[in-house]
Amino acid sequence: MRVVRFRDSAGNVRRGEWTGTDGEEIIARENYGGRLTFGDETFAAEDVDVLPPCEPTKIVCIGLNYADHAAETNSEVPDRPMLFLKPPNTVAAHGERVTLPAGKERIDHEAELAVVIAERCRNVRAENAMDVVAGFTCLNDISNRDDQRIEQNWVRGKAFDNAAPIGPVIAKPEVVPEDAHVRLRLNGELRQDSTRDQFIFSVPELVEEITRYMTLLPGDVISTGTPAGVGPLSDGDTVEVEVEGVGTLRNEIHVP
Amino acid sequence: MRVVRFRDSAGNVRRGEWTGTDGEEIIARENYGGRLTFGDETFAAEDVDVLPPCEPTKIVCIGLNYADHAAETNSEVPDRPMLFLKPPNTVAAHGERVTLPAGKERIDHEAELAVVIAERCRNVRAENAMDVVAGFTCLNDISNRDDQRIEQNWVRGKAFDNAAPIGPVIAKPEVVPEDAHVRLRLNGELRQDSTRDQFIFSVPELVEEITRYMTLLPGDVISTGTPAGVGPLSDGDTVEVEVEGVGTLRNEIHVP
Repeated sequence: MRVVRFRDSAGNVRRGEWTGTDGEEIIARENYGGRLTFGDETFAAEDVDVLPPCEPTKIVCIGLNYADHAAETNSEVPDRPMLFLKPPNTVAAHGERVTLPAGKERIDHEAELAVVIAERCRNVRAENAMDVVAGFTCLNDISNRDDQRIEQNWVRGKAFDNAAPIGPVIAKPEVVPEDAHVRLRLNGELRQDSTRDQFIFSVPELVEEITRYMTLLPGDVISTGTPAGVGPLSDGDTVEVEVEGVGTLRNEIHVP
Repeated sequence: MRVVRFRDSAGNVRRGEWTGTDGEEIIARENYGGRLTFGDETFAAEDVDVLPPCEPTKIVCIGLNYADHAAETNSEVPDRPMLFLKPPNTVAAHGERVTLPAGKERIDHEAELAVVIAERCRNVRAENAMDVVAGFTCLNDISNRDDQRIEQNWVRGKAFDNAAPIGPVIAKPEVVPEDAHVRLRLNGELRQDSTRDQFIFSVPELVEEITRYMTLLPGDVISTGTPAGVGPLSDGDTVEVEVEGVGTLRNEIHVP
């Protein structure tokens, strides 16, 4: 099941199930077309505004969680998860045209599988971690390298407005394969492609480590890191993050 | 005027003015006793639970904003503000007994003057910055040095639950002197004492720089950095942050 938050044409915010006109598989791959079911009502996907699938109070991101990305950035594989934060101002919706900071040399895409938290939790052990997970979604960890390179904490680098497009749905864990592909396409060209079984730290390990320090709330997000193949975004680009079983998060890039 | 959020004995959350029984000065210095006025109603301070004075979606903190603290940490004075983030789980109220992470060698206090934002804003110029400021409060930027020392982004170091006691009131800017003292007392002993006119970056400069990248929302907080004299906290300590004109934020420390 794939749950979508959307605004209908009357302006009401609703939460429904997103299914494809030609069956689950098409919607899981493309998220274009299809229909949204809210109770007895059905909406055509093109008639609604898709909203971010959750409203996080914080996004806890993981650096270097794929060995191939650690290698491409000349970083050592860490012995515990490398954490950083994206606050709520970073959130952008599927389909939204996202405006990025002007005047930067290099702002990169980073395709990620993101975990949405279902309930308030602290000190969760790895073996119980999936009990607090609502499901998975796609996140683009957009990164302003100009500033990230020169700051201790990645705030200008990672926490600017629109630095975290997320969506389009929350897919229940059972519809996302253990070896789900995490892919990124830039203007239709495949740029990142790896699988969830390549994670250095698994989702349960991440939940355990983060909740050792922080209470997580419903709608909070853990973004699990990006594979190799990160690269620059330019004005007018269309960028798509696909997580197998979730679907595709698509945004157009605007750089003033 | 000093605005307090509190929960009355019936459980209602209210916002009122906190005044001293013996005049403004006592309450501005101590925050003990005094009364809270909510419309026509008056409450004795000891009969209510003081809540955090605002509900930030993010706290944007400044590192090294006093030359004396930069010197004590052997850090260079930065050429632009050094930023880091505390998410909402870090917030704790005046009077709350705060539980800190167990098993750490050193967790330090850091007394700070904090700025509370009044309205949604982006790209604010310094000359207009005070238009978006609701007022000032006290914040204790509690810092877990064990982890801060060894992580790129200070998440385990600065973003754990209770890492940001804040309060007790929002004082309007006009009641906080330009050279207001920022002090910390540990079990009654003065440990930090500097003045706001020692800031490397002023409040308007901070608002301009942060809103270049991020939208700030009502209740969001900018914490302006700590002066020299940071030091360790232990189980059972009483720690007080005083900002002249605001009053005193007091917490008891619990380390399991």
